[in-house]
Amino acid sequence: MDYQNILESIYKQILPFAKEGKPADYIPALAAVNPDRFGMCINTIDGGEFAIEQSDVRFSIQSISKVFALAMALSLKGEEVWKRVGREPSGTAFNSLVQLEIEHGLPRNPFINAGAMVILDMLLTSLDNPEEEFLNFVRKLSASDTISYNTVVSRSERETGYLNAAIANMLKYHKNLDCEVERVLQFYFMICSIEMSCKELARAFLAFANHKNHFEYAGVSLTSSQVKRMNAVMQTCGFYDEAGEFSYLVGLPGKSGVGGGIAAIYPSRYSVAVWSPRLNSKGNSVMGIKALELLTTETEESIF
Amino acid sequence: MDYQNILESIYKQILPFAKEGKPADYIPALAAVNPDRFGMCINTIDGGEFAIEQSDVRFSIQSISKVFALAMALSLKGEEVWKRVGREPSGTAFNSLVQLEIEHGLPRNPFINAGAMVILDMLLTSLDNPEEEFLNFVRKLSASDTISYNTVVSRSERETGYLNAAIANMLKYHKNLDCEVERVLQFYFMICSIEMSCKELARAFLAFANHKNHFEYAGVSLTSSQVKRMNAVMQTCGFYDEAGEFSYLVGLPGKSGVGGGIAAIYPSRYSVAVWSPRLNSKGNSVMGIKALELLTTETEESIF
Amino acid sequence: MDYQNILESIYKQILPFAKEGKPADYIPALAAVNPDRFGMCINTIDGGEFAIEQSDVRFSIQSISKVFALAMALSLKGEEVWKRVGREPSGTAFNSLVQLEIEHGLPRNPFINAGAMVILDMLLTSLDNPEEEFLNFVRKLSASDTISYNTVVSRSERETGYLNAAIANMLKYHKNLDCEVERVLQFYFMICSIEMSCKELARAFLAFANHKNHFEYAGVSLTSSQVKRMNAVMQTCGFYDEAGEFSYLVGLPGKSGVGGGIAAIYPSRYSVAVWSPRLNSKGNSVMGIKALELLTTETEESIF
Amino acid sequence: MDYQNILESIYKQILPFAKEGKPADYIPALAAVNPDRFGMCINTIDGGEFAIEQSDVRFSIQSISKVFALAMALSLKGEEVWKRVGREPSGTAFNSLVQLEIEHGLPRNPFINAGAMVILDMLLTSLDNPEEEFLNFVRKLSASDTISYNTVVSRSERETGYLNAAIANMLKYHKNLDCEVERVLQFYFMICSIEMSCKELARAFLAFANHKNHFEYAGVSLTSSQVKRMNAVMQTCGFYDEAGEFSYLVGLPGKSGVGGGIAAIYPSRYSVAVWSPRLNSKGNSVMGIKALELLTTETEESIF
Repeated sequence: MDYQNILESIYKQILPFAKEGKPADYIPALAAVNPDRFGMCINTIDGGEFAIEQSDVRFSIQSISKVFALAMALSLKGEEVWKRVGREPSGTAFNSLVQLEIEHGLPRNPFINAGAMVILDMLLTSLDNPEEEFLNFVRKLSASDTISYNTVVSRSERETGYLNAAIANMLKYHKNLDCEVERVLQFYFMICSIEMSCKELARAFLAFANHKNHFEYAGVSLTSSQVKRMNAVMQTCGFYDEAGEFSYLVGLPGKSGVGGGIAAIYPSRYSVAVWSPRLNSKGNSVMGIKALELLTTETEESIF
Repeated sequence: MDYQNILESIYKQILPFAKEGKPADYIPALAAVNPDRFGMCINTIDGGEFAIEQSDVRFSIQSISKVFALAMALSLKGEEVWKRVGREPSGTAFNSLVQLEIEHGLPRNPFINAGAMVILDMLLTSLDNPEEEFLNFVRKLSASDTISYNTVVSRSERETGYLNAAIANMLKYHKNLDCEVERVLQFYFMICSIEMSCKELARAFLAFANHKNHFEYAGVSLTSSQVKRMNAVMQTCGFYDEAGEFSYLVGLPGKSGVGGGIAAIYPSRYSVAVWSPRLNSKGNSVMGIKALELLTTETEESIF
Repeated sequence: MDYQNILESIYKQILPFAKEGKPADYIPALAAVNPDRFGMCINTIDGGEFAIEQSDVRFSIQSISKVFALAMALSLKGEEVWKRVGREPSGTAFNSLVQLEIEHGLPRNPFINAGAMVILDMLLTSLDNPEEEFLNFVRKLSASDTISYNTVVSRSERETGYLNAAIANMLKYHKNLDCEVERVLQFYFMICSIEMSCKELARAFLAFANHKNHFEYAGVSLTSSQVKRMNAVMQTCGFYDEAGEFSYLVGLPGKSGVGGGIAAIYPSRYSVAVWSPRLNSKGNSVMGIKALELLTTETEESIF
Repeated sequence: MDYQNILESIYKQILPFAKEGKPADYIPALAAVNPDRFGMCINTIDGGEFAIEQSDVRFSIQSISKVFALAMALSLKGEEVWKRVGREPSGTAFNSLVQLEIEHGLPRNPFINAGAMVILDMLLTSLDNPEEEFLNFVRKLSASDTISYNTVVSRSERETGYLNAAIANMLKYHKNLDCEVERVLQFYFMICSIEMSCKELARAFLAFANHKNHFEYAGVSLTSSQVKRMNAVMQTCGFYDEAGEFSYLVGLPGKSGVGGGIAAIYPSRYSVAVWSPRLNSKGNSVMGIKALELLTTETEESIF
């Protein structure tokens, strides 16, 4: 498959949508990002790397980091993880606190904010230096030593993060957090502030595409079955209230972030990362989703 | 792959769970089914058929028929279908009417009852003899001319189907039904009453596994892309509030019915149907899910 | 107190609001009512009657009839009534079906549609000729033999009453209706179609104002304590999602109807009925509420 | 009316219920209260005081203090108060955060926790020394200079008050708090920690019973109409999800607290305070409600 050519063809086809959507602007650091940036990179399991445009520019990966958090928790706790968080799609648009109140503090899945906080609470009680070990894992996964947290972003998010603070307090009220609310929130905003390029993201996700290879990075170790099951969770829960839509249009497991990044996987073939800051009303990158839809259409490769 | 051997090995492994769960008993006809029945059949795209136990015994396929209804609607209406029904998982356990009220009569997907009713309303306004044409399509799809509705079941369901009547009235109130409430309910309970064996179901679903083959049965015609997308919808929405769980454990698109049947697909490889009447608390067949989990584990074949 | 003078003064003060709001038009019979009609009538417990404008013109009392239904049920069943219906305000605007689903078919109070249906179900199983006996009770209560059902209205409502049909089916599903859904709906729309004038309504409600007098009309008999408690239910639940607002502005127990009528009570003093078809966004008569607010302000009489 | 005799008769009649219910124990200070305490005191507008049992013993008035907060806010802001908080009953049992999320941060009324926080936010932005001025107002109202905050209670509540922290954060997220979350929570728990005896509470509430007297205490000034309207709000919203029940059984406006206290008003006649720590499942004092029900039954005085 001539992925380089396909990427270039895709880019031409999505240019008409370049001004659609609105970048996240709830904190200054995100509002300051140039909304016209675009990057896309494919990593194949046989070692190929294909990239276009600003695939070396780092951006705030935001919720994509929840995938890394889940990997660490599964490595540490195994199936026990699912005692404190579900793996069902969150469904309805009136999500978060309503669901949490009705289901007594058990988040629907590890990719909604509430679920990610519970996962991070597990890491906080299991690891000696959670922030350091988390970053180290991400660096090893993407083979890039300079990936870092952006503490301007994380602090800024904490200061205005009232909804997330409400969620964390609800979890604590329902006894689904062991650590203090403030500690969990800090860690949460910290991991969301990690900055990576499309190339780094694609490399990091290649490990999830290649389940036949043993997954072992910085002490985080997953079985082939665990890797497959993480893909299953990404498939049904990776795009908030647009998981079905993404599955329908693209047909690959993946995870999006409010910074405009999307990482996805074609199991046993490739990983792909795409970045464009303008978001649709559901909080997913407009050009990113378009690009991935074209990718599976042009290659005729989807899991279905 | 020696599927026959695998099926026999699976059967031995799931026998310990043979008495778990409780069959549907909300109408006499379902309560009268022998709960100890079991069947399982695989059809491969290269023409193989592998079956064990009572794979020739017909049972009430119930909600599995919603897949056939969606196929007909897509053939007739194309993407227009999605103007009146979503394709997102229904999510939360407090389902159906709450979601319908809050989202003003737009059902989340075509596999929840509300969504199926909207799909059937489309068929009713497009077809001359809806019941006849529907049955004809299913017969052609499974290459079996004797498949029939069970009108004892459908009438019995209509008489006690107050929740479904509430749903249909809500849809009508929100102007998402063109036909009369009663007409839609009749058709709904009719298609749910179809009886098929595991062998017939597996054959019918093979068409969805084999998207490279042109899908054309009794005038119902789908493109390769439409077949793939139907699989995507089954993946995220095929198991009500257990879609994530099924995706996690089994990793195949599929659809379950309250009669204890499950049909699933490994795209480009095989279709599989399994039947065991005892259900878990979410309304899915206990042994059926176990059997499919073992199938993807033993064959190491899943879409992820 | 010179009520006649007060009524005339009120009328002048509310004239500026004469064109505010929108009359109910969901059925032809209601849409055909002249929206500029207005009537208001006070009956004092010492026998006075004070009326202005079109207080002799009959209109569709709609939900006001739920008060009469509750009186009959309390007379027949006493406190047992509260086993099948609550007496708490319905609260949130996303009412009816959501509440019913979450609270498993137990309606919040007898004045929301679901609650009234349960009350009517009780009457249907207890009375030989429910429609006849209900009408007879209302006639005796208002000392007017010509009060009647409007079957054009009731049939028209039944034909388009999908939301109410959904509610009745939900109640039946939760086993909170003994009679058939259709029978309950018929009776429900029948009692809502009763037509009365302001004079007749005021007279009918006087019995609820005068709890020291024995309540006994056409075999419907209530103790002093039961009459008081009916007032309490009207106070907290008589105005759907505007009960608090009405209590705040007017301070009297009462009940409104979508036909633009409101009946209210000053215990031990008077009853009052007002009618003006234009409704606010909550479904209550704009001029009616204004008029009652002015009444308690001008007379300085409220229960608080 | 021989209130002293009536109180003594009531006490005898409620003794059989002395062990029913369970006192609040979510913080040590409340769990340490002797659950067998009981006090009841009536103050008539003509100057009488009638008390039985431990009517001089102070207890944590908790949510009853929300009435005082509303009085201060109305005095400072008038009708503007209602732009940021509703006056409708909260209704459904699935309360607080669900309602707040769906209605975008506008609390249903000033007596649910969310509403009280918004009221306190108004005081915080208007007063120089909010804690001092609030306490001063309560002292003047009850003519008792030694009433105080219990900072052991308030600190203890803050430490475990995760649900309230979630609520405050939701309000802040929806921009319905001007002050910092933490500041509002502190003030909230502070006013809830006030300790008063039944005698002091009855005296404080007498001002709300006597609307013909000018309401003016420590600079807090309300018109007769404002006092009446506060009673209306207490009537429909004073008992959380049991407002209808209390209205039905007792028929007086009032406010309960989780410390087991209830204060109520018979407008133009008397105020009454009762205290017994054991609570029913809705969080209201078992003996307290029984005692008030008997009071209105025996005196045949209720607002209806």
